[in-house]
Amino acid sequence: MNTETQSLSVTEIAEKTREAARKLAGLSHEDRNQALGAIAQALATDSEEIIKANKIDCETAEREGISTPLYNRLKLGKTKLEATIKGVKDVIYLADPIGHISIDRELDENLILKRVSCPLGVLGIIFEARPEALIQITSLAIKSGNGVILKGGREATKSCQTLVKIIQKALINTKVSPDVVQLLTTREEIRTLLDLEEYIDLIIPRGSNDFVRFIQQNTNINVLGHADGICHLYVDKKANLEKATSITVDAKTQYPAACNAIETLLVHQDIAAEFLPKIAEKAREYNIQLKGDELTQNYIEIEAATEEDWKTEYSDLILSIKTVKSLEEAIAHINVYGSKHTDAIVSEDKKSAEIFMNQVDAAGVYHNCSTRFADGFRYGFGAEVGISTQKMPPRGPVGLEGLVTYKYQVTGDGHIAATYSGDNAKPFTHKNLS
Amino acid sequence: MNTETQSLSVTEIAEKTREAARKLAGLSHEDRNQALGAIAQALATDSEEIIKANKIDCETAEREGISTPLYNRLKLGKTKLEATIKGVKDVIYLADPIGHISIDRELDENLILKRVSCPLGVLGIIFEARPEALIQITSLAIKSGNGVILKGGREATKSCQTLVKIIQKALINTKVSPDVVQLLTTREEIRTLLDLEEYIDLIIPRGSNDFVRFIQQNTNINVLGHADGICHLYVDKKANLEKATSITVDAKTQYPAACNAIETLLVHQDIAAEFLPKIAEKAREYNIQLKGDELTQNYIEIEAATEEDWKTEYSDLILSIKTVKSLEEAIAHINVYGSKHTDAIVSEDKKSAEIFMNQVDAAGVYHNCSTRFADGFRYGFGAEVGISTQKMPPRGPVGLEGLVTYKYQVTGDGHIAATYSGDNAKPFTHKNLS
Repeated sequence: MNTETQSLSVTEIAEKTREAARKLAGLSHEDRNQALGAIAQALATDSEEIIKANKIDCETAEREGISTPLYNRLKLGKTKLEATIKGVKDVIYLADPIGHISIDRELDENLILKRVSCPLGVLGIIFEARPEALIQITSLAIKSGNGVILKGGREATKSCQTLVKIIQKALINTKVSPDVVQLLTTREEIRTLLDLEEYIDLIIPRGSNDFVRFIQQNTNINVLGHADGICHLYVDKKANLEKATSITVDAKTQYPAACNAIETLLVHQDIAAEFLPKIAEKAREYNIQLKGDELTQNYIEIEAATEEDWKTEYSDLILSIKTVKSLEEAIAHINVYGSKHTDAIVSEDKKSAEIFMNQVDAAGVYHNCSTRFADGFRYGFGAEVGISTQKMPPRGPVGLEGLVTYKYQVTGDGHIAATYSGDNAKPFTHKNLS
Repeated sequence: MNTETQSLSVTEIAEKTREAARKLAGLSHEDRNQALGAIAQALATDSEEIIKANKIDCETAEREGISTPLYNRLKLGKTKLEATIKGVKDVIYLADPIGHISIDRELDENLILKRVSCPLGVLGIIFEARPEALIQITSLAIKSGNGVILKGGREATKSCQTLVKIIQKALINTKVSPDVVQLLTTREEIRTLLDLEEYIDLIIPRGSNDFVRFIQQNTNINVLGHADGICHLYVDKKANLEKATSITVDAKTQYPAACNAIETLLVHQDIAAEFLPKIAEKAREYNIQLKGDELTQNYIEIEAATEEDWKTEYSDLILSIKTVKSLEEAIAHINVYGSKHTDAIVSEDKKSAEIFMNQVDAAGVYHNCSTRFADGFRYGFGAEVGISTQKMPPRGPVGLEGLVTYKYQVTGDGHIAATYSGDNAKPFTHKNLS
């Protein structure tokens, strides 16, 4: 928590952030971009201080026996910091997500309806011990006109405090109030935050599946995120097996810890005898541990898969395999065990692909390509705020547009509803203006 | 509950509906419209049976001492039924909400990303004792490719059972499974439904504020609705007082029970001495009970308003008035006490209107017109599913598009992510195709 807000309660901090965010909502794109420029500048100027604070975090974490991958995420050296500062400048060049008009309609003469995109208000973002995430999130929040209350992983506390202090200081000389960016540092504060429906408009939790699930189940505030990433690849009887093999290897091994990596391979029995030995061979080559259901065990030597396997996100070089009798069985399996993230079919039969893409209930349904493409940058969104496995939009990889909502603006010249009702009701024109 | 599902649990009903909805999602617009045609036909053919069942409901309700307005809502006579059947036919002519492509982008040669609108899945709709609502909701659900689990007000049980029986029978000879429409009849079943996150994708509660709030607070499923409709009209110091008077009368009296009627009038002190007596006169004319804060009491004879008044949706011919010192005070009042539904400013000063529309946090922000325009039909949406005071889209009056979501479809030709990463990463083309 920064010095100024040290004695404030979470509710008071949230109230203050909301107030500042309301003013931010009225600023121009230029004003918001100027604030981002000031932040980039300040981070560059004070980079030594940042690196020093991060060193203290790293040393503490090392003493506490942090794992190497987590240490690498925590560490914020000169190169990573410079790349992140460049990232802030890139955000300046993204299109303004605010003020987009999606409906522009004359209801009657001089009575105009517009649907205009606007900021959500205040975001609550809980992220892992990765200090540069704080910088990325803050720049996307300001770009989209939102206030942001941040809570970083415990191990990064000192780094986060230093970054927020520098960002707030940089904002003093801009039109954006320093109050739009706030830091929480304890778990108890998160608990309180989850109850502040009145002040917080969206929670974005990042981190372990259990953590995201905890957040989803303990707040009435909208949550953008995904607890699990149980993705499937179904290899149809009409699949080109060369493509199928290469996609399987890519979707499993290119980054096994990613949420868009596959956990289960579904294989049509008509091609199982030819395809499964190829996969067994690749598994040896890429060091993938395979687990198969009974039918699969008829074709290759493989450890038995249990019911638990279909529900597991391994996040590792492990792949469960189920041999299915039909496209329908594959779809049914995915709809029961999938996490509605991304599922793919390999098939040269367009009709089967169409049925799969219609009936599989997931944010991403793919045909003849790797599930690993499910990503905001790969989709060309410029930035990724998160991946949502919710049913309602925003769904799937979410760019800046996930941080905005819309308002209906109606402008008249003294128009009243009575004119348009009753026996002599005037009809609406409902003419789209653009 | 219909005969067939009499012995099924709510969970089993929900599972069955979801299964049927998945198949519905794959049907063409024509198939869905044909089902709607069959429903309209069956309702016309069996209208006597419907009216008879409704008569029984009405008689029971009368014996139990139902109020006249509720009785009028419950009653389904020949004229109302015919108008509702015509409504089903009108839905046939609405544009297909499914299959809209909002992103069509080449990621690389032969690797195409599309964002396509698709049904949500299964809707849970809880509505008042108004039998024709069942028909309207069912036709919008089928139009948008969704299954629907209905629960109508207790007093309409017999009418609802008869309607669902007729609708299900009509669907037997269409491509839409009769299982897409299901009826629950008890409060306990609703409680269970609220826990069925796995099967239900959206809950739309209609009815009293307390009831909607109860639903919102007791489910993790997305809820489309609004608990309160506390709307404000702010009369600025630069207001045309003639417009202001006529808008005040319309917004308060045209339909006081509507959620988009105003509850509080905010008046700038610079025009209070001239404007408030006009309002007092209109109040006498239209039988509106006025309540005012201390400042207001300086200008007119008026009952005192308390803190409680600012938080109250009267749904009646009562209006609270607060005299404010500035535009900012008006905005602050609305942002504290408003329900984020619809708030309006009357002013000839465009700059003030702009500030108001930017800073007031509501689904609808209006300038120089009545809040009563906040309505899906008036906005030209063809149908209204509900009005949402949530922050995230869909917000405000929601048409058919509130019943759909989207999927990302990616189609490749064996494309893998490894091609686009590492030292020799191939760049994405990110070329919009339409």
